[in-house]
Amino acid sequence: MNICFGPWKPAKSVVTANKDVVAQFGKDMFDSAEKNDVDFLFEASVGGGIPIITPLKQSLTANRITEIMGIVNGTTNYMLTKMTECGSDYDTVLKEAQAKGYAEANPAADVDGLDAARKAAILASLAFNTRVELKDVSIEGITKITPDDIDYAKNLGYVIKLLAVGKDSAANGVDVRVHPVFLPKEHPLAAVNGVFNAIYVRGNAIGEAMFYGQGAGSLPTASAVVSDIIDASRDIVNNTFGRVRCTCYEQKSFCPMEKTESSYYVRLLVDDKPGVLGYVATAFGDAGVSLRSVIRPSGMLLIMLRSWPSRIRWCMRKSRRLLRF
Amino acid sequence: MNICFGPWKPAKSVVTANKDVVAQFGKDMFDSAEKNDVDFLFEASVGGGIPIITPLKQSLTANRITEIMGIVNGTTNYMLTKMTECGSDYDTVLKEAQAKGYAEANPAADVDGLDAARKAAILASLAFNTRVELKDVSIEGITKITPDDIDYAKNLGYVIKLLAVGKDSAANGVDVRVHPVFLPKEHPLAAVNGVFNAIYVRGNAIGEAMFYGQGAGSLPTASAVVSDIIDASRDIVNNTFGRVRCTCYEQKSFCPMEKTESSYYVRLLVDDKPGVLGYVATAFGDAGVSLRSVIRPSGMLLIMLRSWPSRIRWCMRKSRRLLRF
Repeated sequence: MNICFGPWKPAKSVVTANKDVVAQFGKDMFDSAEKNDVDFLFEASVGGGIPIITPLKQSLTANRITEIMGIVNGTTNYMLTKMTECGSDYDTVLKEAQAKGYAEANPAADVDGLDAARKAAILASLAFNTRVELKDVSIEGITKITPDDIDYAKNLGYVIKLLAVGKDSAANGVDVRVHPVFLPKEHPLAAVNGVFNAIYVRGNAIGEAMFYGQGAGSLPTASAVVSDIIDASRDIVNNTFGRVRCTCYEQKSFCPMEKTESSYYVRLLVDDKPGVLGYVATAFGDAGVSLRSVIRPSGMLLIMLRSWPSRIRWCMRKSRRLLRF
Repeated sequence: MNICFGPWKPAKSVVTANKDVVAQFGKDMFDSAEKNDVDFLFEASVGGGIPIITPLKQSLTANRITEIMGIVNGTTNYMLTKMTECGSDYDTVLKEAQAKGYAEANPAADVDGLDAARKAAILASLAFNTRVELKDVSIEGITKITPDDIDYAKNLGYVIKLLAVGKDSAANGVDVRVHPVFLPKEHPLAAVNGVFNAIYVRGNAIGEAMFYGQGAGSLPTASAVVSDIIDASRDIVNNTFGRVRCTCYEQKSFCPMEKTESSYYVRLLVDDKPGVLGYVATAFGDAGVSLRSVIRPSGMLLIMLRSWPSRIRWCMRKSRRLLRF
């Protein structure tokens, strides 16, 4: 943007909606903006029209933010909503989403979680005041979700959502990931359906807050871009630049997903024979993992438990060995 | 706030959480801030910790906002939520709210809608870029709501919420009011329960957006106040003031509630005699008001219709006359 009016020098502030650029080159962009004494604004890079970057950089600065969770990809949220409401399977809703223009011909970036991961990196960088890059984000998409999973979630009072999750705890460091989550039906994010996006923030002063709106589309994106341009223009008119600079002024350590204890949902394909549940429960029990709930539809074991990823993988390998006998 | 450091002159920017001052003397405060070349910030005046003033003044500036609706009073939202979840009556939940410290000993300002009306005036002024004062807001509280109303709403797929509503239409002008509303269960505001607040905005570019969080309490309010102080400090450090000034740069006309056609819910106490519904329907029909739905529990007529307030009052007077025969 190049605006020159009044007695001021020409200013070339930068406004972008490109999340890839912000996630990958955010630091370089800020360094360059500072060197050239201009603004660098990117409200449209996450959540389309939803004001979230400005609130994080300005309105929530008095908080230590401990958690940020977002439904930040409209394509996958549309697909999961359809699977939940209509009971359709993954391939059917993907075709429907492609026909409606919500998913691209090659949907990989959306359904594999890469798009959400870029936004997770941006949100976590702003929320935790430390640089989070794409390589720091654990990513799992929605391609393996079946109607059985959706049903199981529904019966237990959950909905399945693809979330971008960032957590910052003094004990473990920063933990950023994108994966499908069993979300309790009462959670504010659980009612965010279709192509809508929402970002949920937990801070030590504000408690819980949520920002909801249209996460994509030309007009919502234009709303954010043009508002940024007006904001940059206000700085030009007032002859001030870089009023709100890069806020990554800390260097926090990361807690890899492998070392994060979480609640997990495990689906195993099993033979409909007596003793199978006993074998599996023994395998998990021997590894010190206690099962929270088990449902056994035909040919399947659906388990809720709390543990670490490596321990769960070890149990599942052991379960398979046991099941061979 | 008086901060003086570096080579700059002392600056006395003003940060307030006082909605009464902003609603009543907002213009004077802005005039004075401009004259003295300082900032005037008031994020905490509406919605406690929820960032809504800054998003309206900065992040949504590219929009023409046509509608703003908010659950902006935690006391009444807590009471209505309890009435909906537990079936309790108004007096019981008021006592419970007072015992928990959510309602004051004299709850009038909350339950009569005055607190919400002040916030409605502030929100509408920012959303529609025209000065809205308390006298421009039509106000109705929640004191007359009964468990029957709540039940009727529930059966029809609605929840009752006390909303601050502002609408701006090119044809009718600006219309600002506070009153209980039958809100469809699917509306994003319908799931905002307990002491939580939320503000819903509809703009011509962004479409729908919602801001959700804790509307009161010392820490959420402090979150907004301290963030404003940090924002004012950024201006002081950059030697710039009044970057975002008063945004009421238009003078729009108001559409009084009396001239606004809306959907209404009418509850009439009637004798359990045959012919009563016929009388009432005839009275409304003669006045050109068609009833959308009628339910008749014992001793009562619960009616949904669409019309103007004066016409409804005329019908109800006529109904009463008819009912005397």
